[in-house]
Amino acid sequence: MGNQRTRSWWGWGWEDAAFSDEECLAYGARMPGLASAPYPVPDARALDLAAPRTKAPQSLQPLMSDAPLDRASHTYGKAYRDVIRALRGQLDAAPDLVAYPSDEADVVNVLDWATTAEVAVVPFGGGSSVVGGVEFSGEGYAGVVSLDLSRLDRVLEIDPVNRAARIQAGAFGPALEDQLRPDGYTLRHYPQSFEFSTLGGWLATRSGGHYATLHTHIDDFVESMRVVTPVGISESWRLPGSGAGPSPDRLFLGSEGALGVITEAWMRIQQRPQFRRSVSAVFAEATRALAAVREIAQSGLNPANCRLLDPGEAAMSGTSGDGQWVLVLGVESAHHPVDDALNLLVEIARAHGGTVATLAPSAVSASEAKPETRDQAAANWRSAFLRMPYARDGLARMSGIVETFETATTWDRIEALYDDVTTEMGEVIAKVTGAPGRVNCRLTHVYPDGPAPYFSVMATGRRGSEAAMWDDIKAAAMDILTRHRATVTHHHAVGRDHRPGYDRQRPDVFAAALTASKAALDPAGILNPGVLLPAPKR
Amino acid sequence: MGNQRTRSWWGWGWEDAAFSDEECLAYGARMPGLASAPYPVPDARALDLAAPRTKAPQSLQPLMSDAPLDRASHTYGKAYRDVIRALRGQLDAAPDLVAYPSDEADVVNVLDWATTAEVAVVPFGGGSSVVGGVEFSGEGYAGVVSLDLSRLDRVLEIDPVNRAARIQAGAFGPALEDQLRPDGYTLRHYPQSFEFSTLGGWLATRSGGHYATLHTHIDDFVESMRVVTPVGISESWRLPGSGAGPSPDRLFLGSEGALGVITEAWMRIQQRPQFRRSVSAVFAEATRALAAVREIAQSGLNPANCRLLDPGEAAMSGTSGDGQWVLVLGVESAHHPVDDALNLLVEIARAHGGTVATLAPSAVSASEAKPETRDQAAANWRSAFLRMPYARDGLARMSGIVETFETATTWDRIEALYDDVTTEMGEVIAKVTGAPGRVNCRLTHVYPDGPAPYFSVMATGRRGSEAAMWDDIKAAAMDILTRHRATVTHHHAVGRDHRPGYDRQRPDVFAAALTASKAALDPAGILNPGVLLPAPKR
Repeated sequence: MGNQRTRSWWGWGWEDAAFSDEECLAYGARMPGLASAPYPVPDARALDLAAPRTKAPQSLQPLMSDAPLDRASHTYGKAYRDVIRALRGQLDAAPDLVAYPSDEADVVNVLDWATTAEVAVVPFGGGSSVVGGVEFSGEGYAGVVSLDLSRLDRVLEIDPVNRAARIQAGAFGPALEDQLRPDGYTLRHYPQSFEFSTLGGWLATRSGGHYATLHTHIDDFVESMRVVTPVGISESWRLPGSGAGPSPDRLFLGSEGALGVITEAWMRIQQRPQFRRSVSAVFAEATRALAAVREIAQSGLNPANCRLLDPGEAAMSGTSGDGQWVLVLGVESAHHPVDDALNLLVEIARAHGGTVATLAPSAVSASEAKPETRDQAAANWRSAFLRMPYARDGLARMSGIVETFETATTWDRIEALYDDVTTEMGEVIAKVTGAPGRVNCRLTHVYPDGPAPYFSVMATGRRGSEAAMWDDIKAAAMDILTRHRATVTHHHAVGRDHRPGYDRQRPDVFAAALTASKAALDPAGILNPGVLLPAPKR
Repeated sequence: MGNQRTRSWWGWGWEDAAFSDEECLAYGARMPGLASAPYPVPDARALDLAAPRTKAPQSLQPLMSDAPLDRASHTYGKAYRDVIRALRGQLDAAPDLVAYPSDEADVVNVLDWATTAEVAVVPFGGGSSVVGGVEFSGEGYAGVVSLDLSRLDRVLEIDPVNRAARIQAGAFGPALEDQLRPDGYTLRHYPQSFEFSTLGGWLATRSGGHYATLHTHIDDFVESMRVVTPVGISESWRLPGSGAGPSPDRLFLGSEGALGVITEAWMRIQQRPQFRRSVSAVFAEATRALAAVREIAQSGLNPANCRLLDPGEAAMSGTSGDGQWVLVLGVESAHHPVDDALNLLVEIARAHGGTVATLAPSAVSASEAKPETRDQAAANWRSAFLRMPYARDGLARMSGIVETFETATTWDRIEALYDDVTTEMGEVIAKVTGAPGRVNCRLTHVYPDGPAPYFSVMATGRRGSEAAMWDDIKAAAMDILTRHRATVTHHHAVGRDHRPGYDRQRPDVFAAALTASKAALDPAGILNPGVLLPAPKR
């Protein structure tokens, strides 16, 4: 195909899109107190990894790599602490082998061997986990294989009548969309990691996507799933709806590779939207902005986009710099004009004191001549959204601490949660780092009974202690969420990092059922040990 | 409260609403070949039940009844075969005791005793199961207790900010709505059994409700659930959304009393709709009617009502008698006028050759002066819908066979499925009964990837063999569904009657997980043995 771009082994995305040393310095200069020079990026060819503890049988060797670059790039996800550890060359947890199955039979064979050999298998899609979902040191096991599904990258069938597609789990967002586009379809699932994450990863982690309301998680688009487990392959029937017992798919959605390896799914796809409208509104007060969003979430209008940015987030993303809250609203349809819906949304925003920005009267007319948004705030926000992970890595190289966490809570608790997170996190950051930090918030998804706030944290790290400092800050954040009975994660999954909060949140009775299911489907306990449940004592 | 109506112990609903002997005769005369006189209704005081095999300890005796009427009315659900067997006085499977807990502690105590005493516990809401969900003979157990939750009938809290209510599982539809109405709210979940079924029953069976699109099952309205299991109480947090592992609630939704006893739930409620519009359209051809419904289901308009009646069903319900297909459409909102949405739906119906009936031009104007439907076809249909179960019992008393089953399948298979069911069932009915029967169909719920057809069967039974004849007919129906890989149930649950089809449909790997979960939560296997999974060999 020529012109292949190379993925960064240590940080986000494409190697050639990473900040240069000069950019790191320039960007880092915005935050006082950072390091005077960026961390150098370790030379991938000079990585000093421990010798592999295990060797695959001959039949599997064609799938396996023990090349240092493969092992290094499969050691961590892409959390802040992952990037820091990679930059510092801390790769003790590198998997012994990376397996690249080409088809489902390969997956079955790897699991069979691993079960016998007591080798842990860590399913790996795009490796964009920010919760330690793909990191396992292998304690108690004969070794660790990272099972990279990226060769299962095809859209196998498109079914226009039922508007569904059978898609392999290793397909990345762009490749999947490229294969749907010629037929006029789209999955329309755009997590921030879209470019560097896979369908299987989205399903295994209950990814949050494009739609801010209604169909927020990938879960809602699943028609049927195929999952390889150590005791056999599970395939649910293609059904638009069913009431036959507890949903089989819902057991595997969010199972994070601990119950099986998702190999493909029939997904409900969309026709590409023909009608799109977007506006933004600004509010002087949090209370009124939240009231507007709550009314929208309970109105049944179900806008595709409904993101509320707090003043810090608005300033950071360039949408508004005057201390106001910014609400970005979007409606879309493949079927009919959406002007009426937009007008109703605008009415709600105005009724709660919102000033609808950059919305000329003509922009809410029935004209759909220009379906793309003309709203600059929304465009700025989107651009910042996609650039953010590279900027995070640039600041990380300067020992800046830049990380996010998200949750969901009910409307009655959102203001207190927001206040506590921003206030207490400010105090914790000051205590941990000795310098003031910054905590911003946006609501990424909203429901009739509450919103999903997403917090961004910036703080001044001390060279060499960045990851430990972040861990202290994050632990405080998790405590605040637990206190408010807000979920430990809305769409970043549990992995290993969220286990303490998850253990508090999850009903013990359900833990017993999940543990029993795990023992039934993965008797040797080889699948992603330590996510969701404790790694078995061996 | 005075004026208490009495529930029928043998048939549907209120005793005083059952057909009289004269009505049975008159109604039965419409079907040639039925019995010449209705089955007499057995005298409840003269029922000859076996002596109870077990006795509750003294502490539980205030909750327990062994009165014949209690035992008889808790022997069966309300399937056709249940009504016939009750009419014929076949009550061998009567539970030994009926427990009426007044609070959750009572439920815990009953399960504790039953676990020790090896007594099977059959959770019982309204007893409207049509799949053998509440019937267990007790083989291998020391006895059977029917656990009637109807005293847990209160709305405990209404939370207007988050638009949610905490509701006890034993609350029947009307009582629950009565408690929400003064605050302007509604759960708006109206299964056909609404009057005689409970929230807990809806949750345990994944009931299908009011909305024909989008939020079709009760599942979508659950914010959190509280479930008593033999190993402890499970309570999920009140969260608008979460991505923390597989959903705990989704394990209990559809668990049919086999994993635990649901005692209460926080449910997402609705403001009462202020804007409602309804129309009907008729189509000469199935193919075009289905194409219209498919476009509607894929349009994103998400009408509250979208029910397609085949010509037989339309005639039966009095909506149309001229051999056409009738589509009943309804839109509603508590927030904004719905005329625009209705206009778009009407456009779709017309584009596919539908004739929009009884829709004067003014009726699609912006006027909302009369929010109630003015469409007679829709009103007729609704009335027939609610009267149907009493008519079924009237015909059952004349040895008519009247029963329903439902499924869901993808759009590409719906016409073949419909043709096969109507044709082959006709042949089976003729073979089994020696007389022609009638098979009607309506689509009750629709999804972007397929509809949920609901079939009604009428046939001439032979006195004394009615239930066996229906069993033969139903077995043929299940085979057709399996052949088309259509679900064994869309919203009637699995119970004991659907087990063969469910076993074929359910992935074996998921069965292993469910079996393991059951063993973990109900180690003594006392909970509703035989639903979803085989009753343990003892």
